[in-house]
Amino acid sequence: MTSKKTINFFYDVVSPYSWLAFEVMCRYRNVWDVEVKLRPAFLGGIMQKSGNKPPGLVPNKFLYMTKDLQRLAQYVDVPLSPPDDPFEAMFQKGSLAAMRFVTAVQEREKDGDRQVEQVSRELWRRIWSENKDITEPASLSEVPEYLTGMTVKYLALSQGLLIFLQAAKKAGLSDSEIKEVLELCTTQHIKDKLINTTQEALDVGAFGLPMFMYRVNGNAEIFFGSDRFELMAHCIGEKWLGPQPHKSTSKM
Amino acid sequence: MTSKKTINFFYDVVSPYSWLAFEVMCRYRNVWDVEVKLRPAFLGGIMQKSGNKPPGLVPNKFLYMTKDLQRLAQYVDVPLSPPDDPFEAMFQKGSLAAMRFVTAVQEREKDGDRQVEQVSRELWRRIWSENKDITEPASLSEVPEYLTGMTVKYLALSQGLLIFLQAAKKAGLSDSEIKEVLELCTTQHIKDKLINTTQEALDVGAFGLPMFMYRVNGNAEIFFGSDRFELMAHCIGEKWLGPQPHKSTSKM
Repeated sequence: MTSKKTINFFYDVVSPYSWLAFEVMCRYRNVWDVEVKLRPAFLGGIMQKSGNKPPGLVPNKFLYMTKDLQRLAQYVDVPLSPPDDPFEAMFQKGSLAAMRFVTAVQEREKDGDRQVEQVSRELWRRIWSENKDITEPASLSEVPEYLTGMTVKYLALSQGLLIFLQAAKKAGLSDSEIKEVLELCTTQHIKDKLINTTQEALDVGAFGLPMFMYRVNGNAEIFFGSDRFELMAHCIGEKWLGPQPHKSTSKM
Repeated sequence: MTSKKTINFFYDVVSPYSWLAFEVMCRYRNVWDVEVKLRPAFLGGIMQKSGNKPPGLVPNKFLYMTKDLQRLAQYVDVPLSPPDDPFEAMFQKGSLAAMRFVTAVQEREKDGDRQVEQVSRELWRRIWSENKDITEPASLSEVPEYLTGMTVKYLALSQGLLIFLQAAKKAGLSDSEIKEVLELCTTQHIKDKLINTTQEALDVGAFGLPMFMYRVNGNAEIFFGSDRFELMAHCIGEKWLGPQPHKSTSKM
């Protein structure tokens, strides 16, 4: 039994603020006395069910977000650079297939969460750093050889398939692991797992992502966005050393 | 001539996040090498003209804000406690009369901004700490004696008049100063000044309040909300010492 606080980190790779929060949270895993549980969720479902509207619909807010993200990315030291059409990437294309893929990676990984961390990071990098589309269907001719034998229909229709494969490869998954993940992706179990995680986030009060949640005497405490670390640190009795704790510590 | 950076702080006393940001900004006036210019503006106009919607319309967001404000207030050390009906106070009653009053205080005060700072603080305290209404019209019998002679109609109809008077008194304004401010309140000059400040905020990109703005080579840099101090400090080359810089400094 451990008395460590468990911080659930709900995120979606379509959300750039989730990326910033994710990298900072990953850096603090070994600085704060907490356990971090990565909780891939579906932002589209959270927005729709909570009745929230994308911030990008207000022109001044959208302009601000673009600038705010650039400034924060530089300060937090995350190589984020918005895609050609950030509004389309964030709010119109969606991330259902991508988040099912991440959920399947997590489901397959029994020991720790190194793979789900790496795959998530690679997907963010592709959308938010390399301007790649995670929703284009792959053509059959592009499907790599090691996947022959899998349902052709799934492979051809699957949105973003090639990007997922590249991300998984770069994250260090083997061909056979990737095959397993792809087979898992389409199962009802994985679809349900993503739905359930998203519903759990909504039940404790989500209206967007990223969201942090830990329990105090059974009650959920939530923090929304990438800008509540200092406050959260205060609430859990830990120290905020800025978004780059290792640099900051070495300076002191 | 001074090379100090001037930070324009746009705010409305109806906004609780503005209060938190205001107190932190006031504390840093003497810590950072900056000049702070208080810019009373009208939140209702900014929301309407930018096409933004109150966050309180999304139930999960409203619940979160209430909790977030309590936690932040405690951390920032501002005696904020939400009124009985925060939604009504924030989004339905409005603050036009209050912000004209604050604008008039600022207009009358020639030397510095001690009075406008104090009056703003007292108004926040009344709504956000003492659950008082800033929009109730005063009845004629409640109007203090020193104001006799002023337009009876204005006094009777003016929303929140008694609360403004109390705030101004507590902020240290004399009876004659208060009388001058009340006379200014209804002039076209003050109405226009509030409109112009609000429009200036919109022109540089506002979609809500509080908002910070300074210029770099003539271009406006804006920061929205009470949670960008650490980033703003980084951008202007100053040090973030937490929301209570004097406590934090003395500890180091």
